[in-house]
Amino acid sequence: MTTVDLNCDLGEGATEAVHGGDEALLGVVTSANVACGFHAGDPSTMRVLTAQAVARGVAIGAHVAYRDLEGFGRRFVDVHPHTLRDEVAYQIGALAAFARIAGGAVTYVKPHGGLYNAIVTHEEQAAAVVGAVADYDPSVVLMGLPGSAVLRLAEQAGLRTAHEAFADRAYTPEGHLVPRSQPGAVLHDPAEIARRCLAMATGEPVPDVNGDPLLLRPHSICVHGDTPGALAIARAVRRLLEESGVRLAPFTRPA
Amino acid sequence: MTTVDLNCDLGEGATEAVHGGDEALLGVVTSANVACGFHAGDPSTMRVLTAQAVARGVAIGAHVAYRDLEGFGRRFVDVHPHTLRDEVAYQIGALAAFARIAGGAVTYVKPHGGLYNAIVTHEEQAAAVVGAVADYDPSVVLMGLPGSAVLRLAEQAGLRTAHEAFADRAYTPEGHLVPRSQPGAVLHDPAEIARRCLAMATGEPVPDVNGDPLLLRPHSICVHGDTPGALAIARAVRRLLEESGVRLAPFTRPA
Amino acid sequence: MTTVDLNCDLGEGATEAVHGGDEALLGVVTSANVACGFHAGDPSTMRVLTAQAVARGVAIGAHVAYRDLEGFGRRFVDVHPHTLRDEVAYQIGALAAFARIAGGAVTYVKPHGGLYNAIVTHEEQAAAVVGAVADYDPSVVLMGLPGSAVLRLAEQAGLRTAHEAFADRAYTPEGHLVPRSQPGAVLHDPAEIARRCLAMATGEPVPDVNGDPLLLRPHSICVHGDTPGALAIARAVRRLLEESGVRLAPFTRPA
Amino acid sequence: MTTVDLNCDLGEGATEAVHGGDEALLGVVTSANVACGFHAGDPSTMRVLTAQAVARGVAIGAHVAYRDLEGFGRRFVDVHPHTLRDEVAYQIGALAAFARIAGGAVTYVKPHGGLYNAIVTHEEQAAAVVGAVADYDPSVVLMGLPGSAVLRLAEQAGLRTAHEAFADRAYTPEGHLVPRSQPGAVLHDPAEIARRCLAMATGEPVPDVNGDPLLLRPHSICVHGDTPGALAIARAVRRLLEESGVRLAPFTRPA
Repeated sequence: MTTVDLNCDLGEGATEAVHGGDEALLGVVTSANVACGFHAGDPSTMRVLTAQAVARGVAIGAHVAYRDLEGFGRRFVDVHPHTLRDEVAYQIGALAAFARIAGGAVTYVKPHGGLYNAIVTHEEQAAAVVGAVADYDPSVVLMGLPGSAVLRLAEQAGLRTAHEAFADRAYTPEGHLVPRSQPGAVLHDPAEIARRCLAMATGEPVPDVNGDPLLLRPHSICVHGDTPGALAIARAVRRLLEESGVRLAPFTRPA
Repeated sequence: MTTVDLNCDLGEGATEAVHGGDEALLGVVTSANVACGFHAGDPSTMRVLTAQAVARGVAIGAHVAYRDLEGFGRRFVDVHPHTLRDEVAYQIGALAAFARIAGGAVTYVKPHGGLYNAIVTHEEQAAAVVGAVADYDPSVVLMGLPGSAVLRLAEQAGLRTAHEAFADRAYTPEGHLVPRSQPGAVLHDPAEIARRCLAMATGEPVPDVNGDPLLLRPHSICVHGDTPGALAIARAVRRLLEESGVRLAPFTRPA
Repeated sequence: MTTVDLNCDLGEGATEAVHGGDEALLGVVTSANVACGFHAGDPSTMRVLTAQAVARGVAIGAHVAYRDLEGFGRRFVDVHPHTLRDEVAYQIGALAAFARIAGGAVTYVKPHGGLYNAIVTHEEQAAAVVGAVADYDPSVVLMGLPGSAVLRLAEQAGLRTAHEAFADRAYTPEGHLVPRSQPGAVLHDPAEIARRCLAMATGEPVPDVNGDPLLLRPHSICVHGDTPGALAIARAVRRLLEESGVRLAPFTRPA
Repeated sequence: MTTVDLNCDLGEGATEAVHGGDEALLGVVTSANVACGFHAGDPSTMRVLTAQAVARGVAIGAHVAYRDLEGFGRRFVDVHPHTLRDEVAYQIGALAAFARIAGGAVTYVKPHGGLYNAIVTHEEQAAAVVGAVADYDPSVVLMGLPGSAVLRLAEQAGLRTAHEAFADRAYTPEGHLVPRSQPGAVLHDPAEIARRCLAMATGEPVPDVNGDPLLLRPHSICVHGDTPGALAIARAVRRLLEESGVRLAPFTRPA
């Protein structure tokens, strides 16, 4: 039976938000990227989200970021790799406390925003993230962009990796994301997005930005949920996958 | 054989300081209260200190604090108990990551500064700290002031507690600390301080502020080390204890 | 002709929010309490809001707060009065830079949240806020709760003060706010709230919580605008005041 | 009569430090670069330093930085130019409050650390800093590295600029700083450093890293003071300049 994972960024708003959109999303996705307080998130959102994730069988991932609350972790920071390595470990540990309290565990790490983008090519920072995960627990999976430096280094270090695709983004023929600044970079039609996710899950190609077939084989598909429209899209994706007989399950096994 | 524990606050300066005074102190004490980033400390100091502590057989304690870097955690913050509970768990988890990386574990929690003082009497905040420790790992010991609300609640919750005495502070006849604002509140003579510590360790009374005998039976004696003079005092304490046949060992067993 | 001032808290959300609800509110109120970065707000919201306020003839007030982004400045912090005094001056100066760039000036100061409440009775912190304003510019007006320590000390120091009433809050017979924890503390009916504001503006009594007449003579009426319903209320207040021939104008003269 | 300015970074330690090394330095330099709270510094250090600077006739400069307390502002942050522009204005305004309270004014701006280095070449960030100063007060002088983008753009915008030389750094034949990673980059001999400063002040060449003559014509010479040795060097520089009949005076006129 075909299985796929849906992941989503959670815990990036105020604590109260957890009881709104974030809770709805935990009913849709199978892996929750939980903000750890460096770009967003706070201890109480982390506690509530990990408890809900464990209750629903959703895997808990540490959504680690540069220390940049003001910039929401979106911008590059030229932080020393040793500092970054230790900041990543700090964030994993903080989230692990709440996962432990909830009876679960942090089973994967997904870098956020500016860090996610930087370690596609920045070897030293990529190595720092890999080092933090390997030092902390080499059974923790590292999620990132296929073809990135961080996934290559993670695999060289013996870590398990998760290749990620994006439900609502257009791809170049080379399999790169079309930059957001270009027209058509972000898809909006729930039915189209759901069809693309089904194709990704079942090993079929999706149309690239030129309409030519492109094969993406993600371990996990990222859906967004930070707007009412996005939540509707996430639900459309899940519905079509389930109706088509695709099983939704975490790519890591929740503890 | 008589055994006593010496504890000290560490990791409150810049990373570089770890290689100076903090490293010297790790050769003197048996339990290290490591700052977790809320009043002081940063991920890299936490990594270095936990590694050195494990290498020396020094127990690792989470020196948890109000979120107050600007005020060094010294002032009272009327934080909601639920928020405090989760902030304490966050700090323990963050330090636990580095303890784990070093091959050790966080074996006790010592509240810092304004929080330490508040939970002598503030029942709700005391309960929040107790709740965080009990939720995270009930085998973790809670260190505090004898007679405080936090130790009473911790014992009621089934936690192990560590009663703390201060090497360089004068005590009232009731066993309370003489406030720093009063003359004679802080002792400075290394020989006198060392003699008092020996008395505490061997079950003998120490003179209270009036010179009358006062029996303190601490599980751990706090020494300070943030000045050159304080380091000399800490060394004098250790030397006299060892010469007198008192064994120095963590009150918790390092993992 | 009867004149009254309406004030509102602004700049407490993300920069983008300024172009939404905050902009709408600037068309309703005559004095804008601008967050200065300690409980909320950031330099770019401060720039945008001060520019819009100057363009609309709305007075600019520094909404000064404890340094507490995580708690939104709502909780008491036992900060040393000297530190508080300097933190208040810092915030006024930062906002003054943007007021200056916009061609205006900071003409008043309104403490926020936990600080607002604390200095109703906390003499040392109240004196610190007064000292900051007096040191910075004694022509700046201090807004607060009638009967509070901070207004009494401000008047003793020769500062001008602005007495504030709340559009949507019930009052005790003594003229205190009914605590939010009690039923009926917050009013919700736009028509009723508008009628009360008209009474306040024209020197008529409003019903207290028991229905007996209570005379409030505010220099400024605080309206809220952080929800769609609240914006509708603020607009209803303004409409009734204008229809009744009450002139809306800042209690301070915009520079 | 030949005149030169000595500038120094101040207010980067704890408040207490102001009464130690920082106070000594204010007796040596003629322009004080005061940290504004983004890389270091706090409101109370800013108040004390500006008061002492005004009392001694030392010019007050805003030492503006990236928002990066954890990294001491040393690392590049890819902050959006609009955000940077507003953060710079915020910092100038905050310091200006204390300068005003002290009866003085901020007469110049010197970017710090990672920002200082970035805007040697980063045109957008350089333009953001220039824009902030020009918007705030075009009579404020901008200090930076000769040949940098920021000074070029400042001059194009009609701002006055101050060219800076470093007392204790070796220069390449092109007049660039020898990178710290290379041997000989930092000079340590007080007598040699003082002789170089005298040459710079009197329009004589100094030896470049190869020993060939290099003419530097700084408006201000930066001395360091964050170590006991550095303070001794700063004093040696001042003594030789005074003994040689060079007048020490701010390059800007204190208000």
